[in-house]
Amino acid sequence: MSTIPAGRIKAAVAAQRARAEELFEDLARCSQRPRGITRDTYGPGENAAHETFSSQSAGLGLDIRRDPAANTYATWRGRDRSLPRIIIGSHLDSVPHGGNFDGAAGVVAGIVAVAALKGLGFAPRCDVTVMGIRAEESVWFQVSYIGSRSALGTLPSSALDVRRIDTGRTLADHIATCGGDPAALRAGKHELAPSNIRAFLEIHIEQAPSLVELGKPIAVCTGIPGNFRYPDARILGRYDHVGTPRRFRRDAATAAANFAVALDALWAEHEAAGIPMAATLGRFHTDAAAHGLTTVAGEFCFSLDVRAYDAAVLAQLESRLSEIVRQIEASRGVRFELGPRASAEVGIVSPTIRSELEQAAALLGIPAATIGSPASHDAAAFAAAGVPTAMIFVRNENGSHNPDEAMEIDDFLDACAVLTAWIAAQAN
Amino acid sequence: MSTIPAGRIKAAVAAQRARAEELFEDLARCSQRPRGITRDTYGPGENAAHETFSSQSAGLGLDIRRDPAANTYATWRGRDRSLPRIIIGSHLDSVPHGGNFDGAAGVVAGIVAVAALKGLGFAPRCDVTVMGIRAEESVWFQVSYIGSRSALGTLPSSALDVRRIDTGRTLADHIATCGGDPAALRAGKHELAPSNIRAFLEIHIEQAPSLVELGKPIAVCTGIPGNFRYPDARILGRYDHVGTPRRFRRDAATAAANFAVALDALWAEHEAAGIPMAATLGRFHTDAAAHGLTTVAGEFCFSLDVRAYDAAVLAQLESRLSEIVRQIEASRGVRFELGPRASAEVGIVSPTIRSELEQAAALLGIPAATIGSPASHDAAAFAAAGVPTAMIFVRNENGSHNPDEAMEIDDFLDACAVLTAWIAAQAN
Repeated sequence: MSTIPAGRIKAAVAAQRARAEELFEDLARCSQRPRGITRDTYGPGENAAHETFSSQSAGLGLDIRRDPAANTYATWRGRDRSLPRIIIGSHLDSVPHGGNFDGAAGVVAGIVAVAALKGLGFAPRCDVTVMGIRAEESVWFQVSYIGSRSALGTLPSSALDVRRIDTGRTLADHIATCGGDPAALRAGKHELAPSNIRAFLEIHIEQAPSLVELGKPIAVCTGIPGNFRYPDARILGRYDHVGTPRRFRRDAATAAANFAVALDALWAEHEAAGIPMAATLGRFHTDAAAHGLTTVAGEFCFSLDVRAYDAAVLAQLESRLSEIVRQIEASRGVRFELGPRASAEVGIVSPTIRSELEQAAALLGIPAATIGSPASHDAAAFAAAGVPTAMIFVRNENGSHNPDEAMEIDDFLDACAVLTAWIAAQAN
Repeated sequence: MSTIPAGRIKAAVAAQRARAEELFEDLARCSQRPRGITRDTYGPGENAAHETFSSQSAGLGLDIRRDPAANTYATWRGRDRSLPRIIIGSHLDSVPHGGNFDGAAGVVAGIVAVAALKGLGFAPRCDVTVMGIRAEESVWFQVSYIGSRSALGTLPSSALDVRRIDTGRTLADHIATCGGDPAALRAGKHELAPSNIRAFLEIHIEQAPSLVELGKPIAVCTGIPGNFRYPDARILGRYDHVGTPRRFRRDAATAAANFAVALDALWAEHEAAGIPMAATLGRFHTDAAAHGLTTVAGEFCFSLDVRAYDAAVLAQLESRLSEIVRQIEASRGVRFELGPRASAEVGIVSPTIRSELEQAAALLGIPAATIGSPASHDAAAFAAAGVPTAMIFVRNENGSHNPDEAMEIDDFLDACAVLTAWIAAQAN
């Protein structure tokens, strides 16, 4: 499909290896913490990554632009600027003590593809924009897709009043500090119109070792999960003495354990039936101000994230969990307060782009698996806004959101080659 | 058995109601915190309680003495001081945010009994000592029976190097600050010789609502549980992204939930077989520095306390738990690090004193149940040292180790009456 032969694409991408490695090193250098990488959302870590991305892109001759949410756009001007543009992007923030590739690899991939195509003397028909997206990691503000939804005009303005869990400052305040314009966001101003976007492509490390298991360097994504979340759930029981007989206890910790085990059983049941989902109790804890060796726990806090690729599956899971909660409340004499609920829609991948990517991989001789995304991604926000969307995953042995996250540069360049070939064909 | 008629004993004890109420108020006043009572072990809260106890006892004409562990002894001199003495006592510390009666009621009961007997013109044959014991609540130093074992010379001197969980200062340092003499303790100096103690009696609020259930004001204790403890256990898994498929996870939180549910099942099995025990995961938590909504927990911390009335039951429980740990390690891909182990011996109640107390209650017309202690008590340290030991529990609706702990003064005076009648008979 590409007019440029596969061999030339591969060579042009391979020539960008040093650029990619240096860029990853630059990104790591400015966000390294005692344990892993911390690029805090709308904070110094994320800002540094946007600076690194901007200066690299400017060096490539791309136009740099910031929007009111402080997302960064680096645009390679097309021959016909009236055509809908192609956006390659991902986020530049990370979880605390995370890895260097989660998010950033998708931005570096955009840079590598543009640089490789420039090296080949290619001139794109439409604009090709590499987008450094803000605030994808919802651990900081407990809101999904802040940057991408701000860019698309789909973030509810109430989200601007949410506070970052560590600083206690509002999202609006953080955005302003980073050079954004929260007042413009409140007024509904946004950078992107879905009808003017031909496609949004996101390269991302896989967040599980499925590709290691399959022995393939990359995968084309078949779908992005939707989710429902309770970031601040609590179980209220009664603090009691360590010797209290079982029948008198209203033990919040054991109630929480019952919930976790029931949730895991629900997942195992779906796994056995071949219905993909995931469920995570990321925060799961007694109250540090009141717990102790000789005290039965009277209160328990947890966060819950449940994700699946089908809205009906999600709805049914939520109803099953309500039943489980009612049963535990009755048997343990406790009360669940699930607190605020958040959710994200299932992200549908464009079947056309997906097959174009599979075709490009085949032409390049790169083994590509097809897997559902284990994680949520900005791509889901683009898909929800009606933008044709696709993703490529890169093999990663050690999972993500941890300092041991791993990516071989060869695997990454395979993903970049598929991306480059796809742009060459589509923007020809 | 008493030479003083039941009616006179009851009247003399009833006459001490105001003294008991005032003493409880004084104790509460100097240790009230925003939530409940905090008499911190070897800290300002516990010191204030010892001051209150000393000044009250001095007012009654008792001899006041401190030992190297800063325990307080208030002694009513007997007619023959060479005879083994009777000790009535309990601890004056509390858990953080606890109640006013846990521990303190046993010291106030001693004062009430002595005051009532003085009111009756009684002169004891042997010394009767009311003992305000230090450091029973192991939540502070995570060591059991520090005060009573120091008094008996059975505390290993290594315990002096343990640090209080909140201050980080050593036990030796805390003891010195409270007027004790850690160097003397290290040299083996101690106040009490078991052979010189005729009996140790401890009145304590019940730490469960069994007496509420039975509709009786007091109970004579049938035994004090021994325990084994792991105050600082950990489960090591792997931090992973929230979307990681189930088969790849090494989720420390779900592993902890499996452990909690298995522990509860083990308890339910013993309950069904009529074998009394208790198991508590007081601290049970993901790591606040690393956990989050979108991260699978890679580490989990917990404390474990398992107690029973039979050393063989304890040994068997510990071996069953090891099996459970091995199974979870295998199925979840995690590793348990149980950390330091502590234990306390089962406390055998003297059958003679127990039946004397039951007889005294019957003569006084006070309904007395017989129950095993749900909790550990200093009495167990005396029993372990070979001292004939017994306990009386007072009805308490709301459990202990919480600010809602409750005790009716009428129930308390019933316990005091039984104690007074017993002393009158035994020290006649």
